[in-house]
Amino acid sequence: MNAPVSVIGLGNLGRAVARVFLAAGHPTTVWNRSAGKAAELVAAGATSAPTAAEAFAASPLVVVAVLDPAAARDVLAGVGEAARGRAVVNLTSGGPDDARTLAEQVAGQGADYLHGAVYAVPQTLGTDDSTVNYSGAAHVHEEWRAVLDLLGKGTFLGPDAGRASAFDMAILAGMYGMLSGFLHAAAMGRAGGIDAAELTPPLVSWLTGIFPALSMFADEIDRGDYATEESSLDMNRSGLATILRASASLGVAAPTLQPFQDLVDRQVAEGHGAASLARVVESFGGGG
Amino acid sequence: MNAPVSVIGLGNLGRAVARVFLAAGHPTTVWNRSAGKAAELVAAGATSAPTAAEAFAASPLVVVAVLDPAAARDVLAGVGEAARGRAVVNLTSGGPDDARTLAEQVAGQGADYLHGAVYAVPQTLGTDDSTVNYSGAAHVHEEWRAVLDLLGKGTFLGPDAGRASAFDMAILAGMYGMLSGFLHAAAMGRAGGIDAAELTPPLVSWLTGIFPALSMFADEIDRGDYATEESSLDMNRSGLATILRASASLGVAAPTLQPFQDLVDRQVAEGHGAASLARVVESFGGGG
Ligand SMILES: NC(=O)c1ccc[n+]([C@@H]2O[C@H](COP(=O)([O-])OP(=O)(O)OC[C@H]3O[C@@H](n4cnc5c(N)ncnc54)[C@H](OP(=O)(O)O)[C@@H]3O)[C@@H](O)[C@H]2O)c1
Ligand SMILES: NC(=O)c1ccc[n+]([C@@H]2O[C@H](COP(=O)([O-])OP(=O)(O)OC[C@H]3O[C@@H](n4cnc5c(N)ncnc54)[C@H](OP(=O)(O)O)[C@@H]3O)[C@@H](O)[C@H]2O)c1
Repeated sequence: MNAPVSVIGLGNLGRAVARVFLAAGHPTTVWNRSAGKAAELVAAGATSAPTAAEAFAASPLVVVAVLDPAAARDVLAGVGEAARGRAVVNLTSGGPDDARTLAEQVAGQGADYLHGAVYAVPQTLGTDDSTVNYSGAAHVHEEWRAVLDLLGKGTFLGPDAGRASAFDMAILAGMYGMLSGFLHAAAMGRAGGIDAAELTPPLVSWLTGIFPALSMFADEIDRGDYATEESSLDMNRSGLATILRASASLGVAAPTLQPFQDLVDRQVAEGHGAASLARVVESFGGGG
Repeated sequence: MNAPVSVIGLGNLGRAVARVFLAAGHPTTVWNRSAGKAAELVAAGATSAPTAAEAFAASPLVVVAVLDPAAARDVLAGVGEAARGRAVVNLTSGGPDDARTLAEQVAGQGADYLHGAVYAVPQTLGTDDSTVNYSGAAHVHEEWRAVLDLLGKGTFLGPDAGRASAFDMAILAGMYGMLSGFLHAAAMGRAGGIDAAELTPPLVSWLTGIFPALSMFADEIDRGDYATEESSLDMNRSGLATILRASASLGVAAPTLQPFQDLVDRQVAEGHGAASLARVVESFGGGG
């Protein structure tokens, strides 16, 4: 018989998680703060618990997917003793500190905490396009691997509950950089009479062509050695100046690119003009 | 017999251009402001002209690749009458205005101007990985297509000399967005004990997975219709807030992402929370 599982929070992600468990034949208990969201799942065979504590009581594995870490904290605090002995897998997005705080809270309730960062949208959860990074209680990941792998390809990143989240937040920061660049590019294209639909395919191939440079920069950052023949701060500074001039001449503001140029300028002013562009990582702080 | 060609400026790009022409058997005349850079090319069969005017006189097609638009302007002004009747293909990076100004200057000298934006590094110029966007004098592109295609796959974008450059600058702005995102991500990873080499491959696959969303955003931007079920400003606002909080908790500054969040906040404050993230393009100005 398949292990019973519970899902706390029936937003877009929680409903998708419950659907995956139901499809795999797991007895699935669900709970949501406000009523109504369970109906579709109950029709598909789920049990709707009247309280979160009852949902915790129903299964040894409890997956939490609520709005934010404060909501997760409140729900967990509310279930009190019912959490004892449970394996709590929290898929709620938050910072590394949030995950560590929740892990302590859960430990205080006599339960185990595993944090999961989901790389999927509800439509792709459980398909080959879905991956989940976990960190926290290693034995929870071990013991429940078969069930967790239903959600997507899982990777365990280590015992620090905050690590999957640091990883996640870093990747999302990278994504928003690309999105801000895309929107700046689209604004410049529009001002220059170029449709975004015309601009996007060559932009995407150019970005794809830059990926190998990211690996090169990554290597420089890890070694802390910014000697380069390829992409010096001086070269990038002059390139950026040209782009910012072009942007201004098109009437397009550079709210994100101007501060980046400022970081490059500061590195050059500190005497690192011949060093790699990757050296700008030092200007972000938080460093090694 | 192959047509004679001249190359003005023997920096990294100009030398690569001359090598491609020589390899294809074109009689190639080269000129550089300071001495010494022609030696390797002369050894490979090039003729070194003592003045830029003599290099212009030597060939009907003259390719210019100097540091910046000001250098191109100076070199062209210096050759005066020697430019008459020449097809000038300028590969020097600059803004759309620079290209238009140069086109006028060159027209005033009785020559034709074609602007070229090169998507290649010197090592890949002339390979299948190299592409060049042209705009300006259509008949120059027509007449010299076979020679220009030696440099990479060429596309003609239209008679406005500035168009290839607007395209180019927009794509490079997009690239620097991605690079700034990468560096922010690397700083967060480092502060969280994650090597850049460990972070980069999943970041690259995540970014690749986002590319289809860029096409969706592009479509919204071109239609000016930001209704969405997928990626609302509200959702992104809360995601960005989580990332910025995580970044701060890691001691990592957000010099480029904070201004992006500000743009999102402003859109939400103006009542567009349910609209697509793509609506942020409106905050860049230069608009429609
Ligand atoms: N959707 C995705 O593709 C995806 C992917 C990766 C990660 N995530 C993360 O997963 C989490 C959930 O995402 P989602 O898309 O499912 O969000 P959502 O559709 O907005 O759903 C949010 C859920 O949280 C519940 N909730 C909010 N505040 C609560 C509280 N104080 N106590 C109890 N429940 C509360 C809501 O209950 P009510 O119905 O009562 O409001 C709702 O069920 C977020 O942290 C998100 O970043 C989502
Ligand atoms: N390298 C690439 O992969 C690449 C790709 C696409 C576009 N581009 C663009 O192509 C242009 C050249 O790039 P590059 O990499 O060849 O640069 P580079 O290696 O720095 O060479 C610059 C060249 O410009 C010359 N120059 C500078 N100021 C001059 C002036 N006032 N008068 C005459 N010549 C002058 C220099 O001559 P001296 O030797 O006398 O200093 C040198 O030959 C730039 O606009 C760049 O953005 C380059």
